[in-house]
Amino acid sequence: MPAAGGGARRGRAAGGSGARRAARTQTGSGTKLTYIRRQLSPYEVLDEEGLALIERNADTVLEEIGIEFRGDEQALRQWRDAGADVRGERVHFPKGLCRSLLKTAPSVFTQHARNPDNSVQIGGNATVFAPVYGPPFVRDLDGNRRYATIEDFRNFVKLAYLAPSIHHSGGTVCEPVDIPVNKRHLDMVLAHMMLSDKPFMGSVTAPERAADTVEMCRILFGRDFVDQNTVCISLINANSPMTFDGVMLGALRNYAEANQATIVTPFILAGAMSPVTVAGTLTQVLAEVLAGASFAQLCRPGAPVVFGTFASSISMQSGAPTFGTPEPSLVSFGAAQLARRAGLPFRTGGSLCASKVPDAQAAYESANTLNSTLLAGTNFVLHAAGWLEGGLASCYEKFIMDCDQLGMMQAMMKGVDLSENGQAMSALREVGPGSHFLGCQHTQDNFQTAFYRSTIADNNSYEQWLSEGSKRAETRANEICRRWLDSYEAPPLDPGIAEGLADFVAKRKESESDAFA
Amino acid sequence: MPAAGGGARRGRAAGGSGARRAARTQTGSGTKLTYIRRQLSPYEVLDEEGLALIERNADTVLEEIGIEFRGDEQALRQWRDAGADVRGERVHFPKGLCRSLLKTAPSVFTQHARNPDNSVQIGGNATVFAPVYGPPFVRDLDGNRRYATIEDFRNFVKLAYLAPSIHHSGGTVCEPVDIPVNKRHLDMVLAHMMLSDKPFMGSVTAPERAADTVEMCRILFGRDFVDQNTVCISLINANSPMTFDGVMLGALRNYAEANQATIVTPFILAGAMSPVTVAGTLTQVLAEVLAGASFAQLCRPGAPVVFGTFASSISMQSGAPTFGTPEPSLVSFGAAQLARRAGLPFRTGGSLCASKVPDAQAAYESANTLNSTLLAGTNFVLHAAGWLEGGLASCYEKFIMDCDQLGMMQAMMKGVDLSENGQAMSALREVGPGSHFLGCQHTQDNFQTAFYRSTIADNNSYEQWLSEGSKRAETRANEICRRWLDSYEAPPLDPGIAEGLADFVAKRKESESDAFA
Repeated sequence: MPAAGGGARRGRAAGGSGARRAARTQTGSGTKLTYIRRQLSPYEVLDEEGLALIERNADTVLEEIGIEFRGDEQALRQWRDAGADVRGERVHFPKGLCRSLLKTAPSVFTQHARNPDNSVQIGGNATVFAPVYGPPFVRDLDGNRRYATIEDFRNFVKLAYLAPSIHHSGGTVCEPVDIPVNKRHLDMVLAHMMLSDKPFMGSVTAPERAADTVEMCRILFGRDFVDQNTVCISLINANSPMTFDGVMLGALRNYAEANQATIVTPFILAGAMSPVTVAGTLTQVLAEVLAGASFAQLCRPGAPVVFGTFASSISMQSGAPTFGTPEPSLVSFGAAQLARRAGLPFRTGGSLCASKVPDAQAAYESANTLNSTLLAGTNFVLHAAGWLEGGLASCYEKFIMDCDQLGMMQAMMKGVDLSENGQAMSALREVGPGSHFLGCQHTQDNFQTAFYRSTIADNNSYEQWLSEGSKRAETRANEICRRWLDSYEAPPLDPGIAEGLADFVAKRKESESDAFA
Repeated sequence: MPAAGGGARRGRAAGGSGARRAARTQTGSGTKLTYIRRQLSPYEVLDEEGLALIERNADTVLEEIGIEFRGDEQALRQWRDAGADVRGERVHFPKGLCRSLLKTAPSVFTQHARNPDNSVQIGGNATVFAPVYGPPFVRDLDGNRRYATIEDFRNFVKLAYLAPSIHHSGGTVCEPVDIPVNKRHLDMVLAHMMLSDKPFMGSVTAPERAADTVEMCRILFGRDFVDQNTVCISLINANSPMTFDGVMLGALRNYAEANQATIVTPFILAGAMSPVTVAGTLTQVLAEVLAGASFAQLCRPGAPVVFGTFASSISMQSGAPTFGTPEPSLVSFGAAQLARRAGLPFRTGGSLCASKVPDAQAAYESANTLNSTLLAGTNFVLHAAGWLEGGLASCYEKFIMDCDQLGMMQAMMKGVDLSENGQAMSALREVGPGSHFLGCQHTQDNFQTAFYRSTIADNNSYEQWLSEGSKRAETRANEICRRWLDSYEAPPLDPGIAEGLADFVAKRKESESDAFA
């Protein structure tokens, strides 16, 4: 993995008092890893025959039904030049065209962070956790549900920076609705660059905002480094079913041309944006991703692109989105298999739920989603922490609870240690029948790292729990969250770079009048 | 599957007004199935080499370290006669002895219910859900945590009877501490037989209580039927590490000789009762099960016996048991693989948690445990619903919440429907790009069964949730639980059998003076 660009590295060495202080406040919520290297194989729900069937059906969708590329004449020209059959805004793909274009897409790539120790691998056996993305509301530490502000945004960036089980600063950790919509991307990207030294995501709400993100990356990492390396990853949602709109296509083009990564993601509530069946949804997802990801290759062959899927389903009674139910888990498992066969890194899942509060519903749903996300072999996990209320609210308490779960997944993915120490025959011989292992040599040698140690769980006796105030999980999470935020210190950054970023943001803001829609 | 014995079948046909009324109150929490037929393959965490290593190590434990059979001279004689090397109460097993004895153990068997429609397959691709087992306390519907009573016991039997996603009435659904300890097994077994027509578990707290259970089974099913068929399954815990005690051995012998099933289960809090590593724990589990299960074959070749494991770990800081953490999940996955190789049905897991209340901690931990339980390919899932507080309390609200999760697992295990209807190409063709699937023909044809419909989840808007009282998941579960209990009607039973059971219980109670310890 090449070192990150000179610009960012002019800052003080990673670590320092902030990092040390953070380390002290974070014991127990999982080892700090740059990303997870999964030692367990992915779980598969489709056999070769099933996979081939869905691939054939997706080819049929691409060829017969086609995908619409709306509001982007250039995209239609690109497709025509590549040999597609373009009728109006509808693109029909001759069999094999998309897969042929995708041959230039890397199956594994590195997203560089300004602190090289935090660069992540995307693809292969790596799993990267990024925070919740997109909510306009927050559930704050006083239990209020209200519109999110830039202060909330900065807080979630700080929390993701501090969390040892989060590898990525994410993107729209919440929507700072107190900033004009045509300027807020500048404050958001600036917050990721200034308040964290983990990798981050760019703006996609307009092609020129993607361009702004790339410019800011050039200030942070250096122009040459950005041209040769991926320093930014961005979320390109399909407007399912079978449609990409001009805003997303423009953002995708800007990022791909700048060699920056995109995650092409059919955003699907099955039953509304896709058929009510798992196989039908998988077929549509595959067709949409093949079209979108190969379009990235048309823009710049070799541009890193991720096979994304966001799959939930709706209540057929009310139309409301539901989470943590079995069908989306099956979609995740199946889509991950299709992505591996397409040779692309895969994104899905997270800690998704529909609950309005961080209660048992939130946790059941999130755990179901997260378990299937990890066992599917997902490479990039957006919404890994903090998601509440179907993605309408970023929740501080749930962020902390989810981080604990992410730490557990990290430990699980290590698999079974079969070394001599792992086999523990010395312990079995020393202890023998009818005794206990608490004091034996093997236990003494291993007890500090033996088991995952939850930050949130109360495992004490009922009486002790009572005497400590009968706290529920979210109350304990609230206390931890306040401590984390109180402990935060910004990672060091070269003052010249910081100034350059601030200047850029100020100038760009001056050039626009405020817009709130 | 042969029909159940004549005795039980003299009762009215299954169904009737009670069943119909129950059906009306239970819509939505999953289809009523007798048991789950898993269509998904088990998830595996060990390869051939790892499995062979652990099997070799277990053989070493059996031969070199040995297993203690305490307080049961007859067992030691049986082992000596079988060719084991018995030194005091320690039995050393020549390589291959246990596996050779296990050749007579069935890999799949049927446990008959008095309502033949509720008989279950144990083994193969079947998964059977049974309620929580063992707690001396309950968390009741008024939010009180108190000692359990026989009324609570009966309530949980009723709930398990009513729950469409529970296949089995279980055993000690809570410990009725208001009944003398030497008599309560009679009331417990009677409650399972009278209040439910699902299969059930027997008493193991003394060899003579196992004998009482078998006698009651003979009254219910008829003597010949019981001798030829399995109508009862019972939990035989090893006194880990590497020890079986006389009480459990006596109960095991009584059941095995009567052709009734046992679940030989190392009850392990890793770090205390086993080494602090996954591989070490698996080695010990395998050795203990091989010894206990082959002992069942010594008692009666062909007696059904299940490879059980209850694996949790302890906090190395406080010694408290922890649940839902990664290491026990790895043990479950690995133990299931070892059980399949040993040719035995497998039991582990459930919906385990350490939380004192049905909050997010309870749900995260339970969901983690349940996901690994199902994906491991577990055949018999004890503690599938109602477990709270490390197994110290049976919780009404959590029982209802867990049932919802069990329904989800049932749906997930169906796997991906690849039929023409499942492929949904007609929907994709009808709808096309940019539209929605809500009204298309395929959706109309499938919407009623398309997605799992949770009984507990609130998927409504924040505003609607507020207007309906801002209820948390456990509040909704509380309301459902009260409705279920209110709706309960006992399944019909031949009055002559009911009288016979009551007489037996009355006579046995007369023959004993009250004992409370």
